[in-house]
Amino acid sequence: MGLEVVSGEEMYHLAERLYPICRSITGNGVRETLNILQEIVPLELHEVPTGTSIFDWTVPKEWNIRDAYVRNMQGEKLIAFDRCNLHVVNYSTPISATVSLQELKAHTHTLPDHPQWIPYRTSYYKEDWGFCMSHDQLQSLPDGDYQVSIDASLENGSLTYGECLLPGDTADEILISTHVCHPSLANDNLSGVAVAAFLARHLRQCNRRYSYRFLFIPGTIGSIAWLALNEPITGSIRHGVVLSGVGDRGSITYKRSRRGNAEVDRAFHHVLDARGGQVIEFHPYGYDERQFCSPGFDLPVGCMMRTPFGQYPEYHTSADNLSFISRESLQDSFIVCTEVLSVIEDNRVYVNQNPKCEPQLGRRGLYRSVGGETHSRETEMALLWVLNLSDGTQSLLDIAERSGCRFRSIRDAAERLIECGLLAAA
Amino acid sequence: MGLEVVSGEEMYHLAERLYPICRSITGNGVRETLNILQEIVPLELHEVPTGTSIFDWTVPKEWNIRDAYVRNMQGEKLIAFDRCNLHVVNYSTPISATVSLQELKAHTHTLPDHPQWIPYRTSYYKEDWGFCMSHDQLQSLPDGDYQVSIDASLENGSLTYGECLLPGDTADEILISTHVCHPSLANDNLSGVAVAAFLARHLRQCNRRYSYRFLFIPGTIGSIAWLALNEPITGSIRHGVVLSGVGDRGSITYKRSRRGNAEVDRAFHHVLDARGGQVIEFHPYGYDERQFCSPGFDLPVGCMMRTPFGQYPEYHTSADNLSFISRESLQDSFIVCTEVLSVIEDNRVYVNQNPKCEPQLGRRGLYRSVGGETHSRETEMALLWVLNLSDGTQSLLDIAERSGCRFRSIRDAAERLIECGLLAAA
Amino acid sequence: MGLEVVSGEEMYHLAERLYPICRSITGNGVRETLNILQEIVPLELHEVPTGTSIFDWTVPKEWNIRDAYVRNMQGEKLIAFDRCNLHVVNYSTPISATVSLQELKAHTHTLPDHPQWIPYRTSYYKEDWGFCMSHDQLQSLPDGDYQVSIDASLENGSLTYGECLLPGDTADEILISTHVCHPSLANDNLSGVAVAAFLARHLRQCNRRYSYRFLFIPGTIGSIAWLALNEPITGSIRHGVVLSGVGDRGSITYKRSRRGNAEVDRAFHHVLDARGGQVIEFHPYGYDERQFCSPGFDLPVGCMMRTPFGQYPEYHTSADNLSFISRESLQDSFIVCTEVLSVIEDNRVYVNQNPKCEPQLGRRGLYRSVGGETHSRETEMALLWVLNLSDGTQSLLDIAERSGCRFRSIRDAAERLIECGLLAAA
Repeated sequence: MGLEVVSGEEMYHLAERLYPICRSITGNGVRETLNILQEIVPLELHEVPTGTSIFDWTVPKEWNIRDAYVRNMQGEKLIAFDRCNLHVVNYSTPISATVSLQELKAHTHTLPDHPQWIPYRTSYYKEDWGFCMSHDQLQSLPDGDYQVSIDASLENGSLTYGECLLPGDTADEILISTHVCHPSLANDNLSGVAVAAFLARHLRQCNRRYSYRFLFIPGTIGSIAWLALNEPITGSIRHGVVLSGVGDRGSITYKRSRRGNAEVDRAFHHVLDARGGQVIEFHPYGYDERQFCSPGFDLPVGCMMRTPFGQYPEYHTSADNLSFISRESLQDSFIVCTEVLSVIEDNRVYVNQNPKCEPQLGRRGLYRSVGGETHSRETEMALLWVLNLSDGTQSLLDIAERSGCRFRSIRDAAERLIECGLLAAA
Repeated sequence: MGLEVVSGEEMYHLAERLYPICRSITGNGVRETLNILQEIVPLELHEVPTGTSIFDWTVPKEWNIRDAYVRNMQGEKLIAFDRCNLHVVNYSTPISATVSLQELKAHTHTLPDHPQWIPYRTSYYKEDWGFCMSHDQLQSLPDGDYQVSIDASLENGSLTYGECLLPGDTADEILISTHVCHPSLANDNLSGVAVAAFLARHLRQCNRRYSYRFLFIPGTIGSIAWLALNEPITGSIRHGVVLSGVGDRGSITYKRSRRGNAEVDRAFHHVLDARGGQVIEFHPYGYDERQFCSPGFDLPVGCMMRTPFGQYPEYHTSADNLSFISRESLQDSFIVCTEVLSVIEDNRVYVNQNPKCEPQLGRRGLYRSVGGETHSRETEMALLWVLNLSDGTQSLLDIAERSGCRFRSIRDAAERLIECGLLAAA
Repeated sequence: MGLEVVSGEEMYHLAERLYPICRSITGNGVRETLNILQEIVPLELHEVPTGTSIFDWTVPKEWNIRDAYVRNMQGEKLIAFDRCNLHVVNYSTPISATVSLQELKAHTHTLPDHPQWIPYRTSYYKEDWGFCMSHDQLQSLPDGDYQVSIDASLENGSLTYGECLLPGDTADEILISTHVCHPSLANDNLSGVAVAAFLARHLRQCNRRYSYRFLFIPGTIGSIAWLALNEPITGSIRHGVVLSGVGDRGSITYKRSRRGNAEVDRAFHHVLDARGGQVIEFHPYGYDERQFCSPGFDLPVGCMMRTPFGQYPEYHTSADNLSFISRESLQDSFIVCTEVLSVIEDNRVYVNQNPKCEPQLGRRGLYRSVGGETHSRETEMALLWVLNLSDGTQSLLDIAERSGCRFRSIRDAAERLIECGLLAAA
């Protein structure tokens, strides 16, 4: 699988275009987002009607919002949805009323510890209306009445998601999933959307051993819907990763799948061990790996982030904006993905065709001719390791792990040995 | 299993009453001790006749002592059994003679490193007479003759032990054993006797999944006798602990069973990991776990102590007296036992009834309704862990270990999930 | 197996005698070496004809050298083979010619980082001629022509190796192999030759449970030849070690077999853990363990060295001379070998004949008669461990590892228990 350089600039530009859209778990924001992604990679769009039963859940009513504001009695707009869509609690029911400051406060969320930031809040499953604003602004509001208006609808409709399948040499699949339900938040989740979209575009141009399935879905309810409607497909998923929060300036974090030591877990560990980056254990909280790793599925799906969610104060606030993510981080995340996928694509089991004693590498041009030097060269060591361990039980990643050699060196050694007939597929 | 507060005062008071009695592996001292214990918990008393074959051993003659002294030729009592029963080597043969200082010294044990303490010594299986005294006192004896007298008997009789079975919902048993053969020594073994007796009283009042068998037995020969006479019962013992030295001011030490990772070992590890306290590996020296863990039985029985025996200088000396143990330590030991038993009682395997994707906890009142906050609450995490791992192969303790949550949180989460039908017994 | 003291002096003296001989992978140098070894231990000499197919390899032509020099045009001998046999690239083709300084340099190896040392270089499988000299000497050569002469022959003949089989109580074998193909290099490989030869002499005088097979073979091609010609024998090899570089002043290094935790690996680990010395993981570069551990054989054969090869600058240079090795190190290496072999010889599985509860050790004289002391004696602990763990699944080495006791204590305890009928072979 060749490495195409996708520029961080392209991914950042996509995030910029998507940033102003007010997304939610249903509604036109997601549709608008997926339409823009179609420019990068062809997506199949799915609409799952309100009321559809999906395991323990039901697809909710579709939410759409046109405008919202808070005005003082002088008619001055203090809070305006069109300035920042985080101002409205996502999934707010419509309202148009005059309320006291006290009642407004009861429906308002702020962040006292970060008094200038606006929090991001949702109320998907409890019908209510609410606003979010900076703590400073709330504090500055004088006693009195306020006009509040949320021009939104919560009606039967559907849940929308996008899917892209890139067939490979086998029907075995690698699943790459990212959520598309957050409004104006850059790291969570536009960074994941951007990296996933360009990864799909990149992989379309590559030879693929595995088939790749990309999902652009609303968080939680979207993955539950997909799993409920596509259960037979899950048997083909061999590896997978959820991408989320891959644009901030922190280093890479990979969270293992529930299985703990699946091939995708080991591939990430191998790549991050060399590049820097941490691998953390599975826990059943986070993104859609919660659903993919539920015990009835137990899919080998981990989650790649940079700074783990919830460990940066900007998380789920207006400070997770376009300046919080960087072109370099987006590009670095993209490259880590391609490196890990390259390990998985090339990780096979071979058998040494000359298992009794070492073969004579010298006459095949694989070994120096003058003996007596202190050290074997690194490429020679990789050849020796592949020959020594390729007994039909150990994959190239097994060999890389035991030898301490880079996977790439081991794979290159295997290729050279295959060329001269010393190694063959198991 | 509810937690009743047993006061350290009650246990300490029991130790005080038992302290003056001269116990040994047979004889009236044990009988008197068990009679006092009957006031706290009903005991079945067993008498195993001298000469009974018990595996490689034979029940020895019964030893009883009435009085003993060493007098100088002026008739002055230098050593008096009624002042401290440690003065006589336990199981001494009777003697009444005038001996030289040299001969007296040959039959006397002292502790030169702790010249004011009297050692505790036994001679169960080699018939001999002997005295123990402080090194200072021995040094102060002038040359000359001494009158020595030990008014003891060593005759056919029996070995006595007490047993209490508290039936539970199942015939599977938890064994709690403590030795009752030491004379005036407080930590070793009155602390164990006191904690075991009050634990039995406490458990009588609880609902019990397991049956509990308490043994109050002479060390070594007593556990050998019990095992020999009750071999068929051992097949029902699922967990067990030997209590000894649980009254000193050190922190808790748990020694693993021979199996090394039995459920009782893991339960102690889990509880001590949170409370403080050390877990040490099994070794075949110590208390009656030596017999329970002999390879022909290999029972899952560990040993709970505070400071490990032999690691405090007062061990097996007159300095292991009532001031060496504390009410607080007795109570703390009691509480650790109840916590560990609570883990074992409640450690079951459940099955998530909604294993495909997470169930919707919100509509069951198990999850906050406003989304977007940084962290899940601890109780929510416990719910998610139980749901995620309850696939029919993992017990609540397995889940607590993997999640890092306290067992209690995991058990409470399981109870809430059972209530709303999301979890069921495996 | 008793311990005979072989003096480092004897081994050092053997190395001194063998040092001047110009060995290679074939030729009279090896024959002369093996003839000298015959004085110490009877060897069966084998000649494998040039052209014999041995797996992927072919036995090469036999190389013999009589003389070689480089002269300036004044007839002055600048380089003389009879002063140091490292001056000629091992396996050089014959030449007699006048060459320019430039051409001479193209055929000359030096060590710029160690300008006074002569490197050791070989060209077994690429026919070429060459010289090795100190970098200082090469730098001092003035421009001009030089007479070069290598009076060598490369002709059909045979590869020679020596073998010594010491039959034991069973046909199961312990393989001890060392290479004999290096010319005037002391640590690599005369130290290994000396220790192996005296180890064979020592073992001839011992009772042997295992049969011992000693191989004195040219490196790589020799072990490949032996394996190819003796494949059926390899099924009897239960343990093995390659000896190389065991005379320098560094501490012992043992490199594990490919299996990683074979009995020989564990025995070395146990011995070195107590004595000091490091155990390193297997890697497929080094000495003849590369062949013994190739995947088609995967024999439990490790490699014992002192300083690992290639980690001392003198390696494969004229500085690896007789002053680089010491009598003390040779003797220490010999003793480590005998200790490890003693562990392997005595490592058996026994069964406690009294598995239910402890047997009464006291009446068998195996336990102190006065009880109450703080600690069990070390010999008592070993007895208790052997009794506790000898359930028919655990060997004495398993017991030593788990208990932390020395193997010797465990073995002595087992012997005492066998004597009194408490333990029997599994």
